[in-house]
Amino acid sequence: MDQPRHIQIKGKPVAEGSYPLIITPLVGHTPADIQDELQAILPQRPDLLEWRVDYFKGIADAAQVIATAHAIRKAAPGLPLLLTRRHVAEGGQPIALDEPAVVALYTRACEAGCVDLIDYELSNAPQDLARLRAVSAAQGVAMIMSYHNFECTPDADTLLGRFVQAANLGADVAKVAVMPQDPQDVLTLLSATQRASQTLALPLISMSMSSLGAVSRIAGWQYGSAATFAMGKHSSAPGQIAVDELRALIKGLKRASGGG
Amino acid sequence: MDQPRHIQIKGKPVAEGSYPLIITPLVGHTPADIQDELQAILPQRPDLLEWRVDYFKGIADAAQVIATAHAIRKAAPGLPLLLTRRHVAEGGQPIALDEPAVVALYTRACEAGCVDLIDYELSNAPQDLARLRAVSAAQGVAMIMSYHNFECTPDADTLLGRFVQAANLGADVAKVAVMPQDPQDVLTLLSATQRASQTLALPLISMSMSSLGAVSRIAGWQYGSAATFAMGKHSSAPGQIAVDELRALIKGLKRASGGG
Repeated sequence: MDQPRHIQIKGKPVAEGSYPLIITPLVGHTPADIQDELQAILPQRPDLLEWRVDYFKGIADAAQVIATAHAIRKAAPGLPLLLTRRHVAEGGQPIALDEPAVVALYTRACEAGCVDLIDYELSNAPQDLARLRAVSAAQGVAMIMSYHNFECTPDADTLLGRFVQAANLGADVAKVAVMPQDPQDVLTLLSATQRASQTLALPLISMSMSSLGAVSRIAGWQYGSAATFAMGKHSSAPGQIAVDELRALIKGLKRASGGG
Repeated sequence: MDQPRHIQIKGKPVAEGSYPLIITPLVGHTPADIQDELQAILPQRPDLLEWRVDYFKGIADAAQVIATAHAIRKAAPGLPLLLTRRHVAEGGQPIALDEPAVVALYTRACEAGCVDLIDYELSNAPQDLARLRAVSAAQGVAMIMSYHNFECTPDADTLLGRFVQAANLGADVAKVAVMPQDPQDVLTLLSATQRASQTLALPLISMSMSSLGAVSRIAGWQYGSAATFAMGKHSSAPGQIAVDELRALIKGLKRASGGG
């Protein structure tokens, strides 16, 4: 592995450069659900929290979203917060907002200073990507541009193309999450990530989902993935492993890889 | 992963079909060294012992080799014993025997009934491979035919070719161990193993060596490798992990992969 490339917020590496970061999703429907999740998750010490706001019943009420984001930060002091509305076409929950309203919500959240990172899919309209890139940059919020495929794993060149697209659009982080249909697909994802890490300057996140892809959640950092998602109280995608368990496996692999 | 293909001895799967098998090398120079190693190793419960007889000072004395093999089996009742003279060209120790003497030693060990498996390199003379195949088959000893490369990782087609060669020569098990020079090489080894497992009927063992290849020792079973080597008291190749540690990592990956 080359020098690890760290995810940064306002010029500082998250979790003092811990590598890979362990990101845990919050998928509660209500503020109370989310507080319950936090109680379960925080003792496991994830490095970053992802609030999957597409699960949140109050998503259409920007003031409630902002208040809830502030409440999350208050409950988890020092933990960076990633705000993600995952599009239904990429594995998210159906929501009542149209895309302009989603862009407006992200914009308000950035301006309110209640989140540290946002995630927006590469499949969205170029003007929306550009708009949120400008807003987030102006507010010092890091922007992940992402590609998810819950059906299959496109070939390595296509995956590499997604990482390149994110880089070209000025993302701070490029994320690719795909579904393997056989063990070779897991290798394809790892290979494409490694090629991207050789070519591009930005930090990457990648994973092969489902049980078949579990090894990518444990070993992806060796191929250039700067973060891995672990289940908190509930998972947000197939194949997520509990935080404690994932941390132990990564630590074990690091020990095993330390030999020389 | 398809149905796991088990390594068998006299028609019965080793370790009641445990998958992957954990094989631990014995690398002592003397019978006393080996007994010390056994005391350190046996509490860790490996599934199979590999006696690397090229480390053994008494290798030129067939009677001593046979007596020591019997002593190992007595100290480790029920544990299958693999006899391996690793050729110096494939990472073994220099020995005083020429190749006809090595073939004679393997033959006597098979005939003495003191070992359950033998390992012989595919790079040896075809007549020697054929001779040992016949002797081992007649005695109910399983034969591993192996390829090691401590310099680099040939391309996937070349690796696949080694597995095919072993199958064509009538091996009971085909083994490929190669050195990665970058993370992509580890993926190449896993990919070739998986392709071989789709094509061939015999059980396979494969690994990517050194710290870079550690993930292949933990996850290789998902790509069709029926066994993985773990360090006992001393390692016999770069990148071997301690038995306890490797077992815990495999168990963790299995748990993580059990999700669905």
